[in-house]
Amino acid sequence: MDVNNTKLSLRFSATGLVVEGNSPAQRLISFIDTILRGVGQVMLQNNSYAGFIFLIGIFYNSALFGLAVLIGTAASTATAILLAVDRTQIRQGLFGFNGALVAIALLYFLEPNLLTWGYVIVACSFSTVFMAALLNLFNIWKLPTLTAPFILTTLCFVLACARFGRLHSTNLLPIAGLPQAATVEGIVTTSTVLEGLFNGIAQVFFQGNVITGVIFAIGLLVSSRLAFLTALVGSLTGVVLAWGMGAAEHAIRSGAFGFNCVLTAIAICSVFFILDTASAIYGLLAVITTAVAFAAISAALQPIGMPAMTAPFVIVVWLFVLASPVFPRLRRA
Amino acid sequence: MDVNNTKLSLRFSATGLVVEGNSPAQRLISFIDTILRGVGQVMLQNNSYAGFIFLIGIFYNSALFGLAVLIGTAASTATAILLAVDRTQIRQGLFGFNGALVAIALLYFLEPNLLTWGYVIVACSFSTVFMAALLNLFNIWKLPTLTAPFILTTLCFVLACARFGRLHSTNLLPIAGLPQAATVEGIVTTSTVLEGLFNGIAQVFFQGNVITGVIFAIGLLVSSRLAFLTALVGSLTGVVLAWGMGAAEHAIRSGAFGFNCVLTAIAICSVFFILDTASAIYGLLAVITTAVAFAAISAALQPIGMPAMTAPFVIVVWLFVLASPVFPRLRRA
Amino acid sequence: MDVNNTKLSLRFSATGLVVEGNSPAQRLISFIDTILRGVGQVMLQNNSYAGFIFLIGIFYNSALFGLAVLIGTAASTATAILLAVDRTQIRQGLFGFNGALVAIALLYFLEPNLLTWGYVIVACSFSTVFMAALLNLFNIWKLPTLTAPFILTTLCFVLACARFGRLHSTNLLPIAGLPQAATVEGIVTTSTVLEGLFNGIAQVFFQGNVITGVIFAIGLLVSSRLAFLTALVGSLTGVVLAWGMGAAEHAIRSGAFGFNCVLTAIAICSVFFILDTASAIYGLLAVITTAVAFAAISAALQPIGMPAMTAPFVIVVWLFVLASPVFPRLRRA
Repeated sequence: MDVNNTKLSLRFSATGLVVEGNSPAQRLISFIDTILRGVGQVMLQNNSYAGFIFLIGIFYNSALFGLAVLIGTAASTATAILLAVDRTQIRQGLFGFNGALVAIALLYFLEPNLLTWGYVIVACSFSTVFMAALLNLFNIWKLPTLTAPFILTTLCFVLACARFGRLHSTNLLPIAGLPQAATVEGIVTTSTVLEGLFNGIAQVFFQGNVITGVIFAIGLLVSSRLAFLTALVGSLTGVVLAWGMGAAEHAIRSGAFGFNCVLTAIAICSVFFILDTASAIYGLLAVITTAVAFAAISAALQPIGMPAMTAPFVIVVWLFVLASPVFPRLRRA
Repeated sequence: MDVNNTKLSLRFSATGLVVEGNSPAQRLISFIDTILRGVGQVMLQNNSYAGFIFLIGIFYNSALFGLAVLIGTAASTATAILLAVDRTQIRQGLFGFNGALVAIALLYFLEPNLLTWGYVIVACSFSTVFMAALLNLFNIWKLPTLTAPFILTTLCFVLACARFGRLHSTNLLPIAGLPQAATVEGIVTTSTVLEGLFNGIAQVFFQGNVITGVIFAIGLLVSSRLAFLTALVGSLTGVVLAWGMGAAEHAIRSGAFGFNCVLTAIAICSVFFILDTASAIYGLLAVITTAVAFAAISAALQPIGMPAMTAPFVIVVWLFVLASPVFPRLRRA
Repeated sequence: MDVNNTKLSLRFSATGLVVEGNSPAQRLISFIDTILRGVGQVMLQNNSYAGFIFLIGIFYNSALFGLAVLIGTAASTATAILLAVDRTQIRQGLFGFNGALVAIALLYFLEPNLLTWGYVIVACSFSTVFMAALLNLFNIWKLPTLTAPFILTTLCFVLACARFGRLHSTNLLPIAGLPQAATVEGIVTTSTVLEGLFNGIAQVFFQGNVITGVIFAIGLLVSSRLAFLTALVGSLTGVVLAWGMGAAEHAIRSGAFGFNCVLTAIAICSVFFILDTASAIYGLLAVITTAVAFAAISAALQPIGMPAMTAPFVIVVWLFVLASPVFPRLRRA
């Protein structure tokens, strides 16, 4: 290693480390920065400082999930490197965020043991293939993949529990059943709204912890003031809408109706469109639809006992981005 | 308003009103004509006379559904106007028909109250975004969107009942259950066939009323003799096939097996292909497959307690239109 | 007929008969060769000798299924000829293999009677339209259709049982139910592995017969040594993975975890990519994912009581082929 006798040639940019050169030490630092960007991309931030703060938030809640995020992001990124994916895309963390979420989801739903960890690594490698497939498929429409590879990989690897006797569920999966009309349950108070607001941000990474939500919000603020603001407004909109429509109090408090709205708000109002009156109203319609779609998709997946994850966000943002060329009022970022 | 002292400059064309100029009165008349075309497009007719007759048919059966169609078509069309969609497409009613059906479906499945009406307007606005998204997505294949935005918007907004305690179902949704092998129920008589024939046309707008079906048929006749003829043949084919395969008598009588066949027949034999021997046989295969697909999709949606709506028509016509470039025997209209 | 007084002008090539000229006899022989290639294409072999040997394997197990394959392949191919599909594609058997599988599947799940046979012919004709639709849809990505038309046609025509009282199930369909976490059932022995290995190959055509599996393997060997080898390795990988993950012994023995892996292995390592270290590892990841996807898709289809068929193979190979342009390490065949 020539770490000690050559200049490392790295500097801090606005979004993370810039590493020049190709020595083992430089490649390692570059890899670590890529991992952090991958974690940041879970909230659509190509920013390793944000990724680092998100990691702190996760470790604050659970060392197991923190470890899972690190290993998952590393496994999916390493698969992309081995298959010689274009370096620019890798460096933006685009082959990390799905792996981060796949790993955390599998360890949320499956008992951690050696078999599970091996299973996680296979799933994360597969998520990289899935990502590449969607990049090619969507290239025609310049449509972002968002977290679709994560959702479908997780669905596949968790559903397999129903056939694989050596995978043990943590019993955090929804119980398979037929959807029924809901009744209003519990009373929404100020604490429901406040906890729901930050849990909504925390749940993007499957973390049901208000402090973690606050740390995530700080991470967003470091990356982009607009992302921070839209995330809070998105989460609040989800909470208020769910309240108004009569969703269960415990679900509102847990952030279940917020995390998809957080992501939709960030995507529409701070990533894909330039914020103005038109896109603000467009974003509001998107966020409201996301909350409704969360209710619908959870119900639709009930017979197979699977959670909606970030599918509402992905589907709604796809539609609102695809639709935009037809709407000249909107300005694409 | 200069209605009284200027020439309105409008004339009646073969398909509706032609309005020139941009005064408030002219814009209002143009908007009304657009709404009527939107209602006409539910049966693939860009024709405001047909749309007007369809409206009469709906009001004959139910003032609530008549109002829903008007408000739904207006809401989705207004969203398109606000987002500055190309005027030609709006004027053809292309941003109206999904809203018409979304509104009628939501009021068919949900108790009408203020919350429901607000919910309907959000859903109709969303259906316009969905429509724009599919127009962009399908542009590569010149594939029509058909009523896909209606189906998926309705599925989303109705399924959400399972999480939103303040939405109340009218109990007209199928009861969620696991599909089971059918047995032959009831005896099909001439009245089953006759009622099924016209109910099949009426059910395109969720109307279970023979007279409404007859009025709709007259509306089609005003727009296109071929559309009228193919609609009747399509509905009859659905009824006869369902009878031959042993479907339940009450389902055949209600038009359940007809309405998708009506739409497929109109689409294949009077809209997308020039009618000749090849396209007539092609259309027959499409209509038969539509009836089978209706049975299959109703069964597939049973665990989540949702109806098939016009999904069989949409999927079958997509396939038959997509396939056509491979079949030189067929002439595209 | 000028069969007796002209030269037939046919010769045996490496993949089947080459027929020149257009006399009735020549067209008949050409049609028979096309049927055999259609049967061969079920295992991705454009080879009429392989198709002939597969037919022997099927007739060895069941004359009914042998007849079904012949009639299904003929019906779907004839539909393509009547609709004037490009002759080159027809001659490769591309409009035969879905019909072969649709016919065998419908006769596996439905009691054979006159109505069923008519139903089979309609379904096989429809599978040709489906095939043409996917050829057009996928042209942009140069993505193969694989057996998707078979799977979706069969799902549609079998699910319709739940509404059509005159179709009688053979009770070989999975019982509709809600998926539950599995436990390890039965003890895997050498005989489980050996039977599973060959049943896995036999199950590609719904045949649960070890000797049929051996005959199919011989058919593959005649067409391509690489296809033979990858099929065996694929089947074995499926068996071993399912064993390691704790799948039920009877399912492993029956070849349930093998047949999709067989097809994925043939597709990735002998059809779509040039075999080298990178594609071998890529193929292994694909085969492992296929086995997991089989478990997941079977569970997902449990509420509607339908089998996964070859959907895991189709979805996984689509993803791995779509992803490949992003991975310069891989060389497309």
